[in-house]
Amino acid sequence: MAYTPQKIKKVLVANRGEIAVRIIQAAHELNMKAVAIYTDADQGNLASQLADEAYRVGENLAHKSYLNIDKVLEIAKQAQVDAIHPGYGFLSENAQFAKRVEEAGIIFVGPSSRLIETMGDKAKALQQAKKSQVPTMPNSPVLENVNQALEEARAIGYPLLIKAIAGGGGKGIRLVQDEAQLITQFEIATAEARAAFGNGGVYLEKYLQNAKHIEVQVLGDGERVIHLYDRECSLQRRRQKVLEEAPSPSLDCQTREALCASAARMASDVGYKGAGTLEFLYDTQSKGFYFLEMNTRIQVEHAITEMVTGIDIVRQMLRIADGEPLAYQQGDISLRGHSIEVRINAEDPQNNFFPSPGEITHLQCPTGSGVRLDSMLFSGRTIPPFYDSLIAKLIVYDQNREFALSKLKRALNELKIEGVKTTTALFKALLNDPHIQKGDYDINFLESYKLGG
Amino acid sequence: MAYTPQKIKKVLVANRGEIAVRIIQAAHELNMKAVAIYTDADQGNLASQLADEAYRVGENLAHKSYLNIDKVLEIAKQAQVDAIHPGYGFLSENAQFAKRVEEAGIIFVGPSSRLIETMGDKAKALQQAKKSQVPTMPNSPVLENVNQALEEARAIGYPLLIKAIAGGGGKGIRLVQDEAQLITQFEIATAEARAAFGNGGVYLEKYLQNAKHIEVQVLGDGERVIHLYDRECSLQRRRQKVLEEAPSPSLDCQTREALCASAARMASDVGYKGAGTLEFLYDTQSKGFYFLEMNTRIQVEHAITEMVTGIDIVRQMLRIADGEPLAYQQGDISLRGHSIEVRINAEDPQNNFFPSPGEITHLQCPTGSGVRLDSMLFSGRTIPPFYDSLIAKLIVYDQNREFALSKLKRALNELKIEGVKTTTALFKALLNDPHIQKGDYDINFLESYKLGG
Repeated sequence: MAYTPQKIKKVLVANRGEIAVRIIQAAHELNMKAVAIYTDADQGNLASQLADEAYRVGENLAHKSYLNIDKVLEIAKQAQVDAIHPGYGFLSENAQFAKRVEEAGIIFVGPSSRLIETMGDKAKALQQAKKSQVPTMPNSPVLENVNQALEEARAIGYPLLIKAIAGGGGKGIRLVQDEAQLITQFEIATAEARAAFGNGGVYLEKYLQNAKHIEVQVLGDGERVIHLYDRECSLQRRRQKVLEEAPSPSLDCQTREALCASAARMASDVGYKGAGTLEFLYDTQSKGFYFLEMNTRIQVEHAITEMVTGIDIVRQMLRIADGEPLAYQQGDISLRGHSIEVRINAEDPQNNFFPSPGEITHLQCPTGSGVRLDSMLFSGRTIPPFYDSLIAKLIVYDQNREFALSKLKRALNELKIEGVKTTTALFKALLNDPHIQKGDYDINFLESYKLGG
Repeated sequence: MAYTPQKIKKVLVANRGEIAVRIIQAAHELNMKAVAIYTDADQGNLASQLADEAYRVGENLAHKSYLNIDKVLEIAKQAQVDAIHPGYGFLSENAQFAKRVEEAGIIFVGPSSRLIETMGDKAKALQQAKKSQVPTMPNSPVLENVNQALEEARAIGYPLLIKAIAGGGGKGIRLVQDEAQLITQFEIATAEARAAFGNGGVYLEKYLQNAKHIEVQVLGDGERVIHLYDRECSLQRRRQKVLEEAPSPSLDCQTREALCASAARMASDVGYKGAGTLEFLYDTQSKGFYFLEMNTRIQVEHAITEMVTGIDIVRQMLRIADGEPLAYQQGDISLRGHSIEVRINAEDPQNNFFPSPGEITHLQCPTGSGVRLDSMLFSGRTIPPFYDSLIAKLIVYDQNREFALSKLKRALNELKIEGVKTTTALFKALLNDPHIQKGDYDINFLESYKLGG
């Protein structure tokens, strides 16, 4: 037997969609039973089909189901699971949820609630970065009022960002170019943050022109931390990643080693346990990198790191949670080839990416060498309108970046999804763009990109 | 651009099914145009959809279409292709076809017709093996009559095989245990060979009890040959492979190196060009290996070698045919992890593997980490009754054999094909067999295997 679970015989997957499928697959490969949860709209979804057991968690809206801590814990007890894997989004970075799981005597697949609280709080994480001598963007403390904001802004310089302490996933961020904008936007940002996150705290941060978003994957077992190198995620639309690649086409060897070592050092300094990602902004001109924040959970784009390192990150998360020490030394980790992921969203790129839920009437998936699909799709399945529009991730792997792009092109041509609109057309267009072909794009590239009619 | 074709701007794929899809994919990744051919039953198949152009090659029966040299060449000229890739089966090892292609001024993606004639002829290949000091099974010359057969059999010893010179793919082989059986079977074998292959020549070969079928993948550019290590293909039903794995679970390092070096030496001695496979029988007790025959084309099971070496074999074939030298030195080739392929055939395992053509009414493919599907399938497609029953190959890759088996199990559980019966159930049962789990199986294992009702 490939693996005999010690503590985790059965794991609840407190999520839906492709990441629930992914976690169930990893659990089964470790000979763990997997339990799915579903809402009315998600009944019969792929995760529920593949799980050993599936329970209704509530009504369609997330706060009545996937975000309902009491109900998730009730199912965990009813199904007698040993562990809960939160996936990404929903409760995955909710320290209170992790604490409740711990208090219920159930293993939380991820770091401790204390670590989530520390590293998930951007201000605290930035403090830790400074302690660990990891460069950060010049920024302000949490602001009391607009006057303090103006004063801090003078020290940092414009342009700058107003960021919500409790924001995440690109939400709660505003760019201001000068004092007039700062005055106008400060109150709006505070009010919005209070409404969206229940916490009105905002702070200022230096804004880099032409920055790249580069992040480092780490794995820790509480004793030791290793990194699995970097991913570039600069292609973003409204601060949501749409295409990611590993390794980044922009880093030279020396910068890559320095960046990745910084990330591993900081995670090591806090005794990190589980999978985590440290996000950085990278300035290609100065080769400076600046720690932004840490995600204390699996990322959507984890698969590209798996492709180039040969390490199954979700499997490692489950093994670590099961009490195993890290299975690798840093010296075991090497990069081979290049991997790119595109996020297939049920959205209409010709109509400002408006969500396009509905029934998948026909599905043809790309096949063959170097093609991986992480997906919740099957022919006849209805995509509900209630959740994130990500329905599949198309991941390609090849010997180098040029061939990976070539493979992505042919795989996108093979993919047919009928019944809903998807972002596929955007990626086909992007592959013909010389900036994308050269890896010469920053986090603003897509904002000004025009998709041909 | 990943690759700029020199001579081959457009390639005709003289095949159908999953291998036609595979070759079209490889051509597109090299920025070559691909041309498909189809029969009436194959109209609208996946290969025709994905190709840049598709032409009707004739009626359904293979000898009126995919085996019709004149018609294939006519289409090649009409479509103005620079090269023809023959795939496996059909015309792939037909030296006359290769010669006609050469004479038409078109590149044959494979070795020269002269090499196909030499290495594809088992008797000549065995002679070459002896010249190259590669061990072979004790055998006889082509037999004139039954008396000569009896005399040769005395020297070799029983049990032994009667093999047709022109046979292949496990066809034209008979096992005899003693003189009485040899006398009876000799005439039948000769007559059958004449009827099936148009050549009644047969010879005898020593038969190993409990032998394993192990083969070595080679790549040559006419100047230099490298090997890509071994595959074990012992799980056979009626001498047709059903499950293959790489590397073989039975070879120790020393034997592996000796076996693979033998294969590369022999291919090098004939100045081999293209992809080829040298098949061996391996005796686990004595650790002796014996060259059987060479296939001068891509094999069905090539993908598992791609997974553990990271080298795209079909891409290399096309590059070599395009005039490129081998892109690798032997020292570049290393094994990483373990890969297993199962052949999904449209056959009913509960009914003696009787073919089960028909419409695929619903299809759900396995996804995620380490899963590759090489397939001709899509929902709504009809599998015609006229050709080989292979409809898809499910290939898994993982860090070691135990995890690869675990992954295969979960991937098979995810695969849903409705409308036709498939061999999936056989593989699910095999995965629970302790002999398979330990890698302790020989080429006779499956003949005596009973699939539970």
